[in-house]
Amino acid sequence: MSNHQTEDVCVNDWVNQVLDTVKHNTPATQASAYAPSNIALSKYWGKREANFNLPVTGSLSISLADHGTKTGLSVIDAPAHQVILNGEQVGEHKSFAIKINQWLDRVLPSDLKLRIDTHNTVPTAAGLASSASGFAALTLATNTLMGWQLPEYLLSALARLGSGSASRSLWHGFVKWQAGELADGSDSIAFPLKPQWPQLKVGLLTVSSLSKAVSSREGMGRTVATSALYKQWPQKTEADLASIEAAITNGDFETMAATAEHNAMSMHATMAAAWPPLVYWQPESLVQMQKIWQLRQQGLPLYFTMDAGPNLKLLFEAQHQADVEAAFPEIQIITPFSHVTEVRD
Amino acid sequence: MSNHQTEDVCVNDWVNQVLDTVKHNTPATQASAYAPSNIALSKYWGKREANFNLPVTGSLSISLADHGTKTGLSVIDAPAHQVILNGEQVGEHKSFAIKINQWLDRVLPSDLKLRIDTHNTVPTAAGLASSASGFAALTLATNTLMGWQLPEYLLSALARLGSGSASRSLWHGFVKWQAGELADGSDSIAFPLKPQWPQLKVGLLTVSSLSKAVSSREGMGRTVATSALYKQWPQKTEADLASIEAAITNGDFETMAATAEHNAMSMHATMAAAWPPLVYWQPESLVQMQKIWQLRQQGLPLYFTMDAGPNLKLLFEAQHQADVEAAFPEIQIITPFSHVTEVRD
Repeated sequence: MSNHQTEDVCVNDWVNQVLDTVKHNTPATQASAYAPSNIALSKYWGKREANFNLPVTGSLSISLADHGTKTGLSVIDAPAHQVILNGEQVGEHKSFAIKINQWLDRVLPSDLKLRIDTHNTVPTAAGLASSASGFAALTLATNTLMGWQLPEYLLSALARLGSGSASRSLWHGFVKWQAGELADGSDSIAFPLKPQWPQLKVGLLTVSSLSKAVSSREGMGRTVATSALYKQWPQKTEADLASIEAAITNGDFETMAATAEHNAMSMHATMAAAWPPLVYWQPESLVQMQKIWQLRQQGLPLYFTMDAGPNLKLLFEAQHQADVEAAFPEIQIITPFSHVTEVRD
Repeated sequence: MSNHQTEDVCVNDWVNQVLDTVKHNTPATQASAYAPSNIALSKYWGKREANFNLPVTGSLSISLADHGTKTGLSVIDAPAHQVILNGEQVGEHKSFAIKINQWLDRVLPSDLKLRIDTHNTVPTAAGLASSASGFAALTLATNTLMGWQLPEYLLSALARLGSGSASRSLWHGFVKWQAGELADGSDSIAFPLKPQWPQLKVGLLTVSSLSKAVSSREGMGRTVATSALYKQWPQKTEADLASIEAAITNGDFETMAATAEHNAMSMHATMAAAWPPLVYWQPESLVQMQKIWQLRQQGLPLYFTMDAGPNLKLLFEAQHQADVEAAFPEIQIITPFSHVTEVRD
């Protein structure tokens, strides 16, 4: 028996165990849920196990308020699930539908078929990871539909099976996903952090809305396999995570934002050192980075982070919003803690 | 006594020892020498000792034939050295003149003053390191002027005191600079490799001829001090050096050139992970890199290397020159082994 199969059996055991007491629940006819997108301040980059989406290190994110995904589920009398994205049916052979089907097959009775009606509340063009908010919303909606009433840490682990970063999209505000150590991933769970930061702003600078030539999943794999510099990444990002968490507790914007930028640059550095080289930056990304560094030299406390794509996410505080808007007229600004009343704990 | 002073004494001891038997030589009235510029295929990035320019690792370069520096020396009756660059006198407080004066002060009797007339045979705009060919030509000309008749390995170590990569510019063709282990740097010397490669071409793509905001020297220091990923660099580049040397022996272009590109990308990755981030790439650099990767995907065996600047140096073989020129009409092409008759051993 191959290692791959062993792992599959293992994760299915864990899912069966989690859902054992609720598997005979009668589903409601419909349910829906919303989950915000999130950006990591210290990144998830590299899996220790691919079938469970188990990360090499922990990561820490900020959720993006009303930028996210709303998903409605309804029970249908049909031979297969139906996936609708932003009002249009998605063919069953599209990777988007395949991933959703695989996730549902892991958690639902095999005879239960759903219509999954999912809306991203932010244009895909903004370059945000819709898989994170998508699988988080799907997990929350399924929990309601099925009457699971599972604790949120278990929901974060179930969301993770769909997409690693989805484990961090179940809450608003700052969220920490701990790497965990167990083989079945049952301790690789996320949880919200208490501190709130009403004056924190995230600015989206969209350089390109084209889909990536190399997916995050493939990029991560190539980097771990071929980038000599990646060997230092786990230690680096764990140190950054600890600094960022402490800076959040202390309300120290400069340390939080500078560490987030350093972390993102280090992640992109591990990619540039992969073979073949993996550079998600576009020439325009570099133009914007240089502009940010110049503004910072002139005294503006402005930092950025980037994920596996060409777009920048700027970090600044409310008192500098006018300066940032003057420099970047095309920016979309998000106030992560505008929805603090929705933060659950 | 500080560590810094100890090292100064140490290197001066070594220089005195090398020049001991020749120090009473009567200089000729004038002498001149030419040295080619060089580009490293596996890079020199990081010093283990700054006063001696002792590197953390070995490096391997290809010299650039007629792209280099010609330097004439003549004894003058004056209170100070006079430095002339491309026909214009350089003020004594310019860093160019200061570095030359410091080097001459280390090796010449204090009462001997020279006029140093140095011409770069390639426009500075081409983005080549003129300090490498400059200090190599100065070393060779001084050796002749003073009648030192020193062995070339000692000359390479003397050239290194002016600029690390100058140690590799004393020869045409492939040159290896071994890191050495001794505290006085007397084993940190370069030597030419035997293999020749007449069909090898180096193409210069000049993205920007502006001088760099951060010098290589400063960039190296910042990277070693602040880039967590740099910890993997010594092991990575030593492995690359061994691969490249073997590929040169085997005439294996793909391995040589791919390893050189991977090495350059990894070096730039260590910089991107420094703090503040160090990105020598310009947006146009990225345009050219993407073009090269695209041509390679289409089957053209074309690779590049980059140093601490925005310009690309393309590596290819003669049979693909027409394709390369068609894709990059602005390219300047060098045939490193066009001067094989000048290769000394």
